[in-house]
Amino acid sequence: MVSPAERRTVTVLGATGSVGGATVDLIERHAERYDVEAVVGGRDAAALAQIAIRLGARRAVVADETQGSALASALAGSGVAASAGERAILDAAAVPVDWTMAAIAGAAGLAPTVAAVRRGGTIALATKECLVCAGAAFMAEVARAGATLLPVDSEHNALLQALGGQSVDDVETMTLTASGGPFRTWTAERIADARPEDALRHPTWSMGAKITIDSASMMNKGLELIEAHHLFAIGADRLDVLVHPQSAVHGLVTFRDGAVTAGLGPADMRVPIAHTLGFPERLATPAARLDLARLGELTFEAPDLVRFPALRLAREALAEGGAAATVLNAANEVAVALFLARRVGFMDIPRIVEETLGMLLGRPSAAPATVEDALALDREARRIASERLPVAQFRAH
Amino acid sequence: MVSPAERRTVTVLGATGSVGGATVDLIERHAERYDVEAVVGGRDAAALAQIAIRLGARRAVVADETQGSALASALAGSGVAASAGERAILDAAAVPVDWTMAAIAGAAGLAPTVAAVRRGGTIALATKECLVCAGAAFMAEVARAGATLLPVDSEHNALLQALGGQSVDDVETMTLTASGGPFRTWTAERIADARPEDALRHPTWSMGAKITIDSASMMNKGLELIEAHHLFAIGADRLDVLVHPQSAVHGLVTFRDGAVTAGLGPADMRVPIAHTLGFPERLATPAARLDLARLGELTFEAPDLVRFPALRLAREALAEGGAAATVLNAANEVAVALFLARRVGFMDIPRIVEETLGMLLGRPSAAPATVEDALALDREARRIASERLPVAQFRAH
Repeated sequence: MVSPAERRTVTVLGATGSVGGATVDLIERHAERYDVEAVVGGRDAAALAQIAIRLGARRAVVADETQGSALASALAGSGVAASAGERAILDAAAVPVDWTMAAIAGAAGLAPTVAAVRRGGTIALATKECLVCAGAAFMAEVARAGATLLPVDSEHNALLQALGGQSVDDVETMTLTASGGPFRTWTAERIADARPEDALRHPTWSMGAKITIDSASMMNKGLELIEAHHLFAIGADRLDVLVHPQSAVHGLVTFRDGAVTAGLGPADMRVPIAHTLGFPERLATPAARLDLARLGELTFEAPDLVRFPALRLAREALAEGGAAATVLNAANEVAVALFLARRVGFMDIPRIVEETLGMLLGRPSAAPATVEDALALDREARRIASERLPVAQFRAH
Repeated sequence: MVSPAERRTVTVLGATGSVGGATVDLIERHAERYDVEAVVGGRDAAALAQIAIRLGARRAVVADETQGSALASALAGSGVAASAGERAILDAAAVPVDWTMAAIAGAAGLAPTVAAVRRGGTIALATKECLVCAGAAFMAEVARAGATLLPVDSEHNALLQALGGQSVDDVETMTLTASGGPFRTWTAERIADARPEDALRHPTWSMGAKITIDSASMMNKGLELIEAHHLFAIGADRLDVLVHPQSAVHGLVTFRDGAVTAGLGPADMRVPIAHTLGFPERLATPAARLDLARLGELTFEAPDLVRFPALRLAREALAEGGAAATVLNAANEVAVALFLARRVGFMDIPRIVEETLGMLLGRPSAAPATVEDALALDREARRIASERLPVAQFRAH
């Protein structure tokens, strides 16, 4: 039994996405523990209204203003307040709650997450952009507000669990594993000819198109290194990547005594989400349990930075520091969109990123001091990356 | 730099054994952190004297009274006080220190470890008998004294690290890994004919003869289940064994949300010892680091309780509770000694254990209430197990 005093208030930013859906599932299973303040969705008013009613939320906000009236009518008589648009999202995010799921995809998630951070409490972070686009500025906001930041991404959540509250000073290396993606065993020549449909066949996780392409190029793991650097305040030289196709081990921490702790789990996002939702206690989940005897074997190999130059670029950006990660991330987004639109080839993704980095980083490039500065640099990098398109290697499959 | 106030006082019980040697190595490497109160050894007075002088110990005690004068002359003029015999060991163990390594092998280690526990502080526990022979009584002593008990055994130390200070209530299962020993892939027929020299070929660890035979029969893992049950106050139904020939992963904790944390490490006892010596901080060690990319693959399989009945017997003793574990351990010690002396066959080990359990557990068998009661039962079980010898299956290879 949970006494009323032990109930926690929660808000879900990005409730209609895949992380949001898993979060809603968990909150519903533990309804006796949570009072839902707000659920925020993108444009699917019907789905959002249904979630709000299921969870008994106080308010629902849809990002797309054209969906405001659809949401209002879907919620008429339910007792759930409806609103729409960016301003309404920021207002909802700023209402004090004990726990917020920050899972609005892309740069659009930055401002609402910062609003949530500013009023403190625990932030379960799924919006990667907070760290890869505006890492230093975002972490400064977290420190200023005294918020508790818990990563939802399976690799970072595993590292947090493996760290177990110990000091990063005692850590020798943190290692993120990578599935290696669909091109792990392909030759460089074959990778160069890869089409979107090849890259979209991810071996272990079912995710959105952008992140699946990032997984195929291994840029995803590069971005995760940048995230880990900010989340754990650990230097680039102490961060490592290990290719592990079975994706059972998500992250490993090697301490200065040589002991290693690892975070493992099944491919079910409810597991890391439940860790952040129950923290510091544990919530039961119905996720299938990891069965190592059934898996039989786990394999590990060093990543190949020649066939996967995106990972090399991310490592270089991390070592460079300053604005490099912001530029890398923005250029990669543009390049991946171009690849998905069949306007460039797969190996043009790292080429566009590298050229954009070269063009923008010739001049002094301190880390953006504020989230707004990061977003401005992000826009500039996107513009420059888009212009890298027409040279030589235009392809159409 | 370590300020004088941060220096810790330590005592090493069992300094001339293999765990003791690794402990001495670590203390010497971090000499600026530790003041050594006492070092206690078995019978090698020369080795013990050398250790005492290297560490600048205040006193050295040799268990074998006939070695007392040899120790005294080896330490003459060194400033290290020398003494000998059981009483002197208990006196040394009872001097208050911050940290004690309890690594005296066998039943002889029980009384000194209890003496150390009673004056509090941190006990790094390597003497298995405290838990397998007298588990409930020993843990009651620990609780009464408010001592901090940290396991040195790589599996239990890994579980402690994987648990990371979290509540056992949130744990679904704790899994100990087993190398599977030299007979992992042998048929039951071939195992039945195994000779001591076959069983002594352990694939991954270099250990004493008794524990290597236990590893071959998998009784070792059974005894470790019993230890884990007492150390972590976790029920037998939540304890598991997984065969993992590479011995890179030592233990895994599955939480109720489905997340798994694991403890890994190289095959170097200095790693878990350093964890207990530095706790809650970390000490640097020169141990080779675990290199998963180089290992390439880790394999896992369920244990076979038919070919390895010793593990089944240990599980049954654990489920039975009460005096069963004490009897199991004593009978196994006798049976292993008989096997090493080539007086019984390999499969007579579980037979002798099972028959002894059957004979002693017909009558009411509460867990021994005190360490002394446990030792009395241990002696009785050894006597009965020795009498199980002459029946039918006398073998001489």
